[in-house]
Amino acid sequence: MHHLKTLIREVPDFPKPGINFYDITTLLKDPAGLKAVIDALGAHYIGKKIATVAGIEARGFIFAPAVAYALNAGFVPIRKPKKLPSATERVEYALEYGTDAVEIHRDAVQPGDNVLIVDDVLATGGTAAAAAKLVEKLGGNVAGLGFVIELDFLHGREKLAGRETHALLHY
Amino acid sequence: MHHLKTLIREVPDFPKPGINFYDITTLLKDPAGLKAVIDALGAHYIGKKIATVAGIEARGFIFAPAVAYALNAGFVPIRKPKKLPSATERVEYALEYGTDAVEIHRDAVQPGDNVLIVDDVLATGGTAAAAAKLVEKLGGNVAGLGFVIELDFLHGREKLAGRETHALLHY
Repeated sequence: MHHLKTLIREVPDFPKPGINFYDITTLLKDPAGLKAVIDALGAHYIGKKIATVAGIEARGFIFAPAVAYALNAGFVPIRKPKKLPSATERVEYALEYGTDAVEIHRDAVQPGDNVLIVDDVLATGGTAAAAAKLVEKLGGNVAGLGFVIELDFLHGREKLAGRETHALLHY
Repeated sequence: MHHLKTLIREVPDFPKPGINFYDITTLLKDPAGLKAVIDALGAHYIGKKIATVAGIEARGFIFAPAVAYALNAGFVPIRKPKKLPSATERVEYALEYGTDAVEIHRDAVQPGDNVLIVDDVLATGGTAAAAAKLVEKLGGNVAGLGFVIELDFLHGREKLAGRETHALLHY
């Protein structure tokens, strides 16, 4: 997987000074790069009876449905508040300043279903932990959390409380 | 494709009174439904040498990368302003009140490349027309615009000025 790093563009000082942003768009526009990422994310969960792949708005939407397609699973969106049209559950989580929240449709997951949560980057882990709690509120089993990139120095994995966590690339 | 309509949930008065929202989440959580939609969107463009599938934030991200994966193409995001980290082109378009804009990375498309633009719904066509102009600004050839749903009564197709346009489902 390490050759994929050569396709990722590093953008200094985005979205604010001092942050080094790992831009995956240069990876995704390459047909072989896109295929390698989707196949590798899915391969880790083959045989684990994933019923549903949940993706977190907005960049998680890029990966989760394609992984679901490759695994013959369904796709479920986890969205920012008030975007989903039907009855939802909500989990709030702390930001550096203030709070944010994510929502899922109440009928998105059946109790006992194995759910894989996919996002582009595991950073501080706040959003991913909230997504896991949403799935568990519905009775789903979080069979794994899959990321393209994990920023190891932010220790987001610790917020995921021992749930199976896998990233293709580490910085 | 008409059996897919039975998997779409109609939500009255969302996001505001008088609007009947076609909720595709009930279709996407069904593994066979997801597969049917992605395969059908891609099948229409097989043999058309699509180099890149561009998806419009946020719900276009659900479909475009999976279609790109199925067509062995690359994926390029078209995003709301200031979300993309590198140098961008921008196209503004009119809303009912005011204007909005979409952006694409300048290096996202090579001149002459065949680009398929994918989004969930063709409504008034403003966003899709802006997306097509973005691709053409970069010298790309808009080989098609593919949608899951077209709201025929809004005549959005007229804004696309004769570019190849295809929707799986019509309301």
